[in-house]
Amino acid sequence: MYQALKQRVLDANLQLPKYGLVTFTWGNVSEIDRKLGVIAIKPSGVEYVDMGVDDIVVVDLEGRRVEGNLNPSSDTDTHIELYKAFPNIGGVVHTHSRSATIWAQASLDVPALGTTHADYFYGDVPCTRNLTPVEIEVDYEKNTGVVIIEEFHKRDIDPQAVPSVIVAGHAPFSWGKNAKDAVHNAVVLEEVSAMALATRTLNSGIKIQSELSDKHYNRKHGANAYYGQR
Amino acid sequence: MYQALKQRVLDANLQLPKYGLVTFTWGNVSEIDRKLGVIAIKPSGVEYVDMGVDDIVVVDLEGRRVEGNLNPSSDTDTHIELYKAFPNIGGVVHTHSRSATIWAQASLDVPALGTTHADYFYGDVPCTRNLTPVEIEVDYEKNTGVVIIEEFHKRDIDPQAVPSVIVAGHAPFSWGKNAKDAVHNAVVLEEVSAMALATRTLNSGIKIQSELSDKHYNRKHGANAYYGQR
Amino acid sequence: MYQALKQRVLDANLQLPKYGLVTFTWGNVSEIDRKLGVIAIKPSGVEYVDMGVDDIVVVDLEGRRVEGNLNPSSDTDTHIELYKAFPNIGGVVHTHSRSATIWAQASLDVPALGTTHADYFYGDVPCTRNLTPVEIEVDYEKNTGVVIIEEFHKRDIDPQAVPSVIVAGHAPFSWGKNAKDAVHNAVVLEEVSAMALATRTLNSGIKIQSELSDKHYNRKHGANAYYGQR
Amino acid sequence: MYQALKQRVLDANLQLPKYGLVTFTWGNVSEIDRKLGVIAIKPSGVEYVDMGVDDIVVVDLEGRRVEGNLNPSSDTDTHIELYKAFPNIGGVVHTHSRSATIWAQASLDVPALGTTHADYFYGDVPCTRNLTPVEIEVDYEKNTGVVIIEEFHKRDIDPQAVPSVIVAGHAPFSWGKNAKDAVHNAVVLEEVSAMALATRTLNSGIKIQSELSDKHYNRKHGANAYYGQR
Repeated sequence: MYQALKQRVLDANLQLPKYGLVTFTWGNVSEIDRKLGVIAIKPSGVEYVDMGVDDIVVVDLEGRRVEGNLNPSSDTDTHIELYKAFPNIGGVVHTHSRSATIWAQASLDVPALGTTHADYFYGDVPCTRNLTPVEIEVDYEKNTGVVIIEEFHKRDIDPQAVPSVIVAGHAPFSWGKNAKDAVHNAVVLEEVSAMALATRTLNSGIKIQSELSDKHYNRKHGANAYYGQR
Repeated sequence: MYQALKQRVLDANLQLPKYGLVTFTWGNVSEIDRKLGVIAIKPSGVEYVDMGVDDIVVVDLEGRRVEGNLNPSSDTDTHIELYKAFPNIGGVVHTHSRSATIWAQASLDVPALGTTHADYFYGDVPCTRNLTPVEIEVDYEKNTGVVIIEEFHKRDIDPQAVPSVIVAGHAPFSWGKNAKDAVHNAVVLEEVSAMALATRTLNSGIKIQSELSDKHYNRKHGANAYYGQR
Repeated sequence: MYQALKQRVLDANLQLPKYGLVTFTWGNVSEIDRKLGVIAIKPSGVEYVDMGVDDIVVVDLEGRRVEGNLNPSSDTDTHIELYKAFPNIGGVVHTHSRSATIWAQASLDVPALGTTHADYFYGDVPCTRNLTPVEIEVDYEKNTGVVIIEEFHKRDIDPQAVPSVIVAGHAPFSWGKNAKDAVHNAVVLEEVSAMALATRTLNSGIKIQSELSDKHYNRKHGANAYYGQR
Repeated sequence: MYQALKQRVLDANLQLPKYGLVTFTWGNVSEIDRKLGVIAIKPSGVEYVDMGVDDIVVVDLEGRRVEGNLNPSSDTDTHIELYKAFPNIGGVVHTHSRSATIWAQASLDVPALGTTHADYFYGDVPCTRNLTPVEIEVDYEKNTGVVIIEEFHKRDIDPQAVPSVIVAGHAPFSWGKNAKDAVHNAVVLEEVSAMALATRTLNSGIKIQSELSDKHYNRKHGANAYYGQR
């Protein structure tokens, strides 16, 4: 019943090592089927090379296992919060990819510094506030989702226009219209994070021109997009 | 009729992932046939692994499609401007290669700091001014070419002696006597950009000796060149 | 008699080039069989590609060769000290992996800056003091172990909670419940060392929240761990 | 007559791309046969993938071609100077490997900061002075050798104890007992150059303890060496 969904989630998870976004098992991708009300996600702590389609776990929106024998990713509750709060997203990915994680450890937004960034993210990729000790102690993974959503609401950011976030002290999450698209955005986030690190070393105050940011974002998104084969 | 041209352009585009200059589809190479008045160029938004010779698009110097079913690269108008302004070049390449893009994001010239640079570029690789909001709004890709050409004229730089440019806030363009040669120069630009980043961290004021720059450039270029098998 | 032990040690040594932790022969892994009172370890100065299971050397806890024709790693005496002082460890690895060695050369602890670190190391990875000239002159490799153990005792660090150390001016050692686990920790140390370098450049005073460090360490370790398939 | 020599030189040249020390044709390795008074060296500007044993050029100590149809490396005269001045070396290699070239561009010695360096280099790897305009204009490649030799004499450095040099504004040269050993040293130089860059960023004043440097150098070199299988 969930075979096609599980296959897409497996394929998307296997893109993580291919694009150099993960060490060992440090990443997980999920996709939601909103009609069926289920999420397929990577099992916790399983190596990518050993993973088959039957290892993918299906859970409902309360996190209860619907199909599969393994435990779902320990980050499942964060994925669920994002799917609930952001109704237009279909896939979520979490990694500890090196450069994006560096921005997380520094507790800083990934600043929009060029058109590579602007092609995918409309403005800075926001960094969350720290979780409180209580938020860490109880329902930590759910609260990681809560502070992400809070940051987007507080800054009035459209999660489709900025499909990634930096969780302070932790690492990035990205999302997209499905699992594959979420991984695509995670790859982009890693690249622009690496570029931003060195750019700030060369020229600490620089920002992208707002008109250039608008132009590049709109070349690829919305009714007047003209990039690619439309 | 354009088969050989298209094959060379395909081959040159496939060098981009081989040399690590591109993520996803973020790069495009073209070559001009000046006798026939046409340019062959990568289609927009197509993955390198999926690309065949029939996907390469042939356009005339007004950007009208002459052969092929796909849309040409969204950067085609920049390529056309360069071919029109620089009559001795035969190939153009645009990438978002990491280190050169870092210099673009910092809005700085890539400084000539050693003989690796001097072997290919006679002096700093210039960074353009920002485009104005109007230049961005209307004919953006064409105007990207216009500011490149303006920078070379303003500084009186010979585009054959410095076959690359840094577009502020954006990324590099390189060119050469044909598509393959343009890609070769893009690889060099990326390498010298990476070296220059760290060199300036170690020794912020350093420049190459002008005599050493002259010597290395002339070892490889002009009537008295003695590098290679001549 | 030692065939299975030697095979595990060979396999773990071959993980070093696979994970990019070594140049040439600059690394060695050992595993102890505490019942038999022997340690299997890489031979000194032998290339990984040439190494077979019969090249692995078995020594007793005084460093005397019990099986094998080759000289054991020149670092064998350091391994022995660690096994004697840390009774719960089963494998030890030494490399000159780039980022961890940079912290060693800088004579600095690898600071705990994020959850990637906290998942494996409970607090900073300590850097030893310098050896004295006398400690260097006589029994250098043994004394390298002595200063490691001294640092853990002085700071009251549990070697199972922080399974790596930075030896000042030299390079890292890591350990684990067996040879494979030790190499796993060495890979993690290298990754968090690289992240910490750039994090400190972006934000020089940052530290991980202590509650977040506790949470992530306890997600993976101890009675209440819930990461993975338990 | 020179077949074995040429084969060794070919093999050593092919190690350069394998170890990531070269872009395109930016490197060359030679080996001397002191009895026969000849040097075998890479041809100028030939791609590594296209190179066969018959492309290797044999020259005498005046640089005259003795065997082969291609032009020898444009850096041949530098190699010859080094062989003449350093009677105990048998192989020379020149690359523009990224990190060592960064030190060259910064006109700085590669400082001895850890045992990775001390295992191979007894003290800092020296950076030459700039060549004068006249030295650049006439016999440039020979004079590159002259300033290298001058630096070793001026600082009283034994070229066997420090088998590499940084040529200011240019790039490194390394040497060894034969072509293969020279390439080995070039790989080490690149690695310690990369480590030193980041070490100095973390801790700008740090140096290796002199006793530790002595110890590690003598573990691997001289009558009392005990590293490896002796």
